[in-house]
Parts: sequence; C-alpha cells; structure tokens
Amino acid sequence: MIKQNPISWFYENLPEAQIVEEKFKNIISKNYSLSGFTPMETPCIERVETLTSKWWDDSEIYGVHRLKWELWDTVTLWLRFDLTVPFARYVAQYEWELNFPFKRQQIQKVFRWERPQKWRFREFYQADIDIVWNGKLALFADVEILSTLYNALSELSFWDFVIHINNKKLLIWFLESIWVEKIGETIAIIDKKDKVKTIVPMLENLWLEEKIVNNILELIKVSEEGSSLELLKYFKNIQNDSLQEWLKELNYVYSNLLDLWVAEKSIKINPAISRGLNYYTWTVFEIFITGHENFWSISSGWRYENLCSNFTKNNYPWVGGSIWLSRLLFVLNEIWKVEKNKKTITDVLVVNMWWELLKDALCLVKNLRWKWINTELFLDDETKIAKQLKYANNKMIPFVIIMGEEEREKGIVQLKKLETWEQFEVKINEVVEKIKNK
Amino acid sequence: MIKQNPISWFYENLPEAQIVEEKFKNIISKNYSLSGFTPMETPCIERVETLTSKWWDDSEIYGVHRLKWELWDTVTLWLRFDLTVPFARYVAQYEWELNFPFKRQQIQKVFRWERPQKWRFREFYQADIDIVWNGKLALFADVEILSTLYNALSELSFWDFVIHINNKKLLIWFLESIWVEKIGETIAIIDKKDKVKTIVPMLENLWLEEKIVNNILELIKVSEEGSSLELLKYFKNIQNDSLQEWLKELNYVYSNLLDLWVAEKSIKINPAISRGLNYYTWTVFEIFITGHENFWSISSGWRYENLCSNFTKNNYPWVGGSIWLSRLLFVLNEIWKVEKNKKTITDVLVVNMWWELLKDALCLVKNLRWKWINTELFLDDETKIAKQLKYANNKMIPFVIIMGEEEREKGIVQLKKLETWEQFEVKINEVVEKIKNK
Repeated sequence: MIKQNPISWFYENLPEAQIVEEKFKNIISKNYSLSGFTPMETPCIERVETLTSKWWDDSEIYGVHRLKWELWDTVTLWLRFDLTVPFARYVAQYEWELNFPFKRQQIQKVFRWERPQKWRFREFYQADIDIVWNGKLALFADVEILSTLYNALSELSFWDFVIHINNKKLLIWFLESIWVEKIGETIAIIDKKDKVKTIVPMLENLWLEEKIVNNILELIKVSEEGSSLELLKYFKNIQNDSLQEWLKELNYVYSNLLDLWVAEKSIKINPAISRGLNYYTWTVFEIFITGHENFWSISSGWRYENLCSNFTKNNYPWVGGSIWLSRLLFVLNEIWKVEKNKKTITDVLVVNMWWELLKDALCLVKNLRWKWINTELFLDDETKIAKQLKYANNKMIPFVIIMGEEEREKGIVQLKKLETWEQFEVKINEVVEKIKNK
Repeated sequence: MIKQNPISWFYENLPEAQIVEEKFKNIISKNYSLSGFTPMETPCIERVETLTSKWWDDSEIYGVHRLKWELWDTVTLWLRFDLTVPFARYVAQYEWELNFPFKRQQIQKVFRWERPQKWRFREFYQADIDIVWNGKLALFADVEILSTLYNALSELSFWDFVIHINNKKLLIWFLESIWVEKIGETIAIIDKKDKVKTIVPMLENLWLEEKIVNNILELIKVSEEGSSLELLKYFKNIQNDSLQEWLKELNYVYSNLLDLWVAEKSIKINPAISRGLNYYTWTVFEIFITGHENFWSISSGWRYENLCSNFTKNNYPWVGGSIWLSRLLFVLNEIWKVEKNKKTITDVLVVNMWWELLKDALCLVKNLRWKWINTELFLDDETKIAKQLKYANNKMIPFVIIMGEEEREKGIVQLKKLETWEQFEVKINEVVEKIKNK
C-alpha cells in the first residue's frame, strides 16, 4: 500500500475547483475565438535544439528520457517551458502551409522547475494569443491582442484589473534624449523599481550625472502618478524626433483600445514597464489586479521584430500575450475567494425508485439529456430516497426529480429545487421548460 | 539556424485538422457532461511509486528529470502512461473529500514510448469516463458508461461502429462448465483469435481434449456469426448456475442499453472479447468501426472489483471506458477523409478600408463579437481589397463585410458570402441577423 501525498509545487483540483477552472478556460477560449484566434496545440515534448534556441536557464528545464534505456547525458527531448518557443518553431516548420497574418490561441500546460515560491507551480496552464505576419506586422495587431485579453479578463468578472502598457522604443529614445549611455543597464534598474526602495544609488553606480538621475526620477514619478493622458502630454513636450515617432504609435494603440470600448480606467500608459533587457521589443505590457500590484502580474506580453530568427531566414514580426491561468486562479482564491458552488456539472438527479419503474425513468433521463440538461439517474434502487436526496444535496445538484408509480399513472413528476427545498408537481412534458426557467 | 522536423511518432495539427480535433473534443466532453461525468484533470507528472503500482512495461515509460542536476537513476518522477492509474491515486488521496458514487471525465494527453506502428503515437489524447463507488457499485454504472460512449461516438457521426461487449465471468464459467483447467491461458488464446489463423494447435498444446476444443470452436463460431439474441439463447441452454447468474447481468446491461435508445445494430454480445489475462474483471468491451474491425479498437473499457487496492485499504469497485481520441482522428482521416472545411474559426472578416473609416469599422467589429460572431478586422488598410478577399478565401472564412464611405453614409454594409461569391446590401443593424440566418 502506497500512501499518496501531493507532489510539491504541482497542483490538481477537487471537483468544485476544477469546475471553476473549466469555466475560466471556456470563457478565455470563447473570447479568443470571438477575435478570430484559431485554436492550436503542440506536443508537451520538444527537441533540445528547439528549446535552447532562445536563452533559458536550463536548471529550470525538465528533460525526458526512457527509463533504464537512455543515459541522462544523451537526452534529446525536453518538456516545453513556455508556449512561445514552440509557436516560433511551428511557424517556421509550416511557413509554406500557413496563411498569414496568422492568429492563434493556445491554452495548454507548461513545465518549469521553479524555486519554491507562493503561486509558482512546476506544471501550470498558460493561455496565449499571438499574431505573426511575414514581412510587416501592422500596429493594429497590438490593439487586437490587448483588447482580446481585456475582453476575456472582463468576462471572468473578478476584481478590477489594469493593463500597464508601454512602447519600449519610447523609453529607449527618452534615455537617448537625456544622454544616457548605458541604456540596457538603466532600463533594468527602472524595471526593478517595484522591488528596490531607492534606485538612486544604483543609477549613480552607472556614473550618471545628477541631472540625468533627476530626469529619470521625474519620469518614474509621472509614470506612477500621472494619468495616461498626462503622460502622453509629458512625452509630447520632449524634443526628439524618434521619440515622437514612437509616441505616435503608443497613442494609436491607446486610442484604438478606447474605440474598442476598453474602459479608460483599465489602461495605464506606464513608461517604466520594460520586461527585461531585450532591445528588440516595441509594445510591452503587464496586467495587474487593482490593489494587488505587488503580486505577480496575471497577464503579460510584448512584440518582437522577428519571432523565428532561429528557425528560418524569413522575417516574422510578432506580437503576443499570455494569461497566467493557474496563477490567476490561485491568486483570486486567496484575495477574493472564488465562488465554488457546485461539486458536479449535473443539473438534475432522477431518483431511482424500483426496477419496475426503471424503463420510464430511463425514458425521462434520455429526454432531459436530449434537451441539453446534464442528468444523472441515481445508480441503484436499493439506496433509500432520503439518502439519494442527501447525495444530491452534498454535490449541490440544483434539481431532483421523483417519479413513483402514482406520478407515472398521472403523467407527472415531483420536481424538487434543492436550494429552497420547494417541490412542484409538473406534467412530464413540461419538465424541461420548468427546469430551464428556474 | 535550426532546421525543424517533426519528432518521430509525435503529432501536431495544422489549423484545419486542429479545428476538427477541437470539435471532436467538445462533442465528446458535452456528451460526457450530459450524463453527469464531472470534469477532472491530473498533472502529466506522477511519482514513480504511483505508476509502478500497476504492472506496466517500464521500457514504455518516460522519466522526467532536471537537466544536469539529477542522475537518471535518482529520477522519481514519470510522465503518466494512462489516465486510470492517476485516477486510482486521486480517488485514494481524496477519498474523504469526494462524494460517492463519483463520476468523472478526463480528456488529456498520455505519454508512451510506443514501438513505431501506424496510428500509434508517443503523446496522444485519451477521453476517459469512470464511475467509482465505495462498497458496492450498481450494475447500472456499466450501462451509463456504455450509453454515454455510444452517445458521444454517435454525435461525431462518422461511419457506423459496434460495441462488442462481454461479461468476462461468463467466459470463465463457460470454460469451467466444459471442464477446462488452464482457464487463463485458454482465455488468452481465445482473445488472440483475430490475429492467429488457426487456434486449434494452440489449444491442443494446453492438453485440451478434442471434445473441449470443439466446444470452444463452437463458442467462437456463435460469437462471430450469431446475433446478440442468438448468443443469449445459446448460453441460456448451458446448465451451470454461476454461468446463468452472470448471463443475467449481461442481459441486464444489454436490455437497459436498448431502453436508453442504443441502436440494436450497434451492440454485439461477443463472449470472445476478454482483454487479457486479468481474472478480476466483469464487464469488458471494445468498440470497432464497422468494416474496419481489423484496425485497433477506437474505444474500450472494463470493470474491476477494486480500483484502488494499491493506494488504500478501502474497497472501490470501478467501471470505466476510454475513447482513443488521437487514434480515432487519424483512422477516420485515412478511411473516410474527415471534412476539413475551415482554416480558422473566424466567421466574418471585416475589410480594412482606410484610417478615416477605422472608428466605424471597430464599432461594427465590437457589435458582431458582442453577438457571439467570431470576427476579424483585417490587420491593415494598406493591403488592397482584392488581397484581403483572397486572404478570407484562402482561410475559408464564410463572410466578408465591406463598408466604404458611401455605405457608411447610407448606414449599410456590403455582405459577401464567399462560398457563392454572392453580395448583399444589408442595413447595418440587420447584419447580425442576416449572418446568423445564412
């Protein structure tokens, strides 16, 4: 006998939590589909060469091998650590079969050996959308990614969230315009501002003049305190042609989002969002739950000039975003308690009375299922009716139907609503309607 | 630059095939839900001890380890090779939290190092349903599993299929009644009858008398040629109390399936179906595509007296079944050519005319999405209209909407149905209705 314990930093759900996870997945997927992102899946297992093509800390990667048949140093297959690298590989592999612009969604699990931290799992769901186009990718793609994520997160209808959005070239040209030389290092410091109390000594370490440091501090202050419109105005006053060009782009994304009915309070232009050192990105964004910005973000994304540079000589500009689904569910559960009000997807339990009535019960069950009502017949007729009701109650099944000999003669059923414990006599051919209207 | 080739015996789909796979998954899951099987998922990664608890050829199992950090002989995590062992572990682990009878569905991937064979993959989808109950599991559970699989496969509406069903105890008591001693070995030979031309020498090798061999051959003949009713009659005439008891059970399952509107032609009682040596099973079944019984089955399942014997001292009788989803899709594609008529889930492409019209186009897009119509705005207004139409045509998007300045003034749009190339002038507030009725 093997005592079973959960494996550390892996998760699985009891039925009540799984029902919530399924609902989240369905809402996200539906919104991705509404915007024309076609479903895509790739294997969990990829070649070593594919996954190492982008930099990654390989202490976080799981290798896969045949037991006792392969030595670990001959392992050529790994578990994917994200959905973007497999997507880049897929686009390059099928570049002559796909039609561009190509818009896809992928809601699947990824695997990372994460250091033990709250809400970090070693096998977890990501829900990605991506747009890729050979040659040139219109800026409207950024709008589509952001508005689609907004629609999905809005329909999940949890606490408010805010999209922090930036155009990284804007930050780069801002730093150029104030004569910063070590741009990459400076961006890295600005990106850390949430975690480090004072960034001044770090900036001074880069031999930046006091005036420049003050300029940067002013930027951070305006970024944190100003509204999106104030920020756009702040940048408008900076004399730098390149900066003005990228400002126009950010402005285009922002105003189109408003035209797609994204609420003004849900977008914040935030020039300090930079997501790491990489120079080759334009749009970057992170989405935080309002009042919980100190937690990890629940969604993020960015644009690259060339997604597939490691796999093909053709140029594929790309923009994509990801909802951190597993993390979102656990964070929500902690700060808000997700409502878990069902332990099964069953809508109706038909009580199993005795064998002579079985045929009629089956006919009823079949008709309910035919009308898209999830229906269970209790599995045996030896269990007392009170116990069958208790079973329905424990699983929070909304309705119970009782049809004894008397009801059968009269062509009726007893329909019980478990929430209120009310009971109705309903004609058998009206029971579907009655359930759908309750 | 890394040239990308598929990994042998792994598969992934182009969009047109993925859309079919998603449709299959949704139909299967919907039918599982209609019968009250609640969704469940487990991690892909399980402990070694969990997976080895049932016998399995470990040359087929993938181990998982941290690269360069773990030696292969210290590996304690494996990828699951089926969904039944993780389910048994789950039931035992949460036995005090779950409500029994517990009905679940699980549609996820499993991993096996399969020897190269047609339609065998190393990472593939299974779609399982299971019922488990502590103490005693009513025979009606077997009916629910079979009728639910029947409903799911019927709605997929491919070629006809037949459920070959047996009660294994019936076969055992039949062999007892004709004085066979080596029952396990004899069953194994009967099970192989499809693959071996003549089983007589194999049976003779077991030192069975000629008369007994003839009895077995007669059984196989009746099994292959007789109707379900003829078979039930054949067994009815055999004088053996235990056999008659199990016959009653098989009869119960059969007649209840008919009462649940399972077509008579889709069930075949087949006493030769045994699925291996295991004594401790009752109901066993395999589902084959009609006319293609020589292929692998597309679904199968059975009942155990105790699912969780390795994980808990409590007794959990179980019955379950599985649709081999990935294999089914590939088999169907070969024998029948699954209709792949879309390369995207987009229903409508809105042509992108020029920037002054963008705001109105966005309003239209937003309204279509609001009414659950999957809608794309073409990503830029620099691409010529003819090319935008070609894009819609290549992806087999059903409708295109064109709204130029003139149309905007009049409050209309041009709605083009790409299949017939027809074009209609439609009032802008009637366009949703028009699309839904086409």
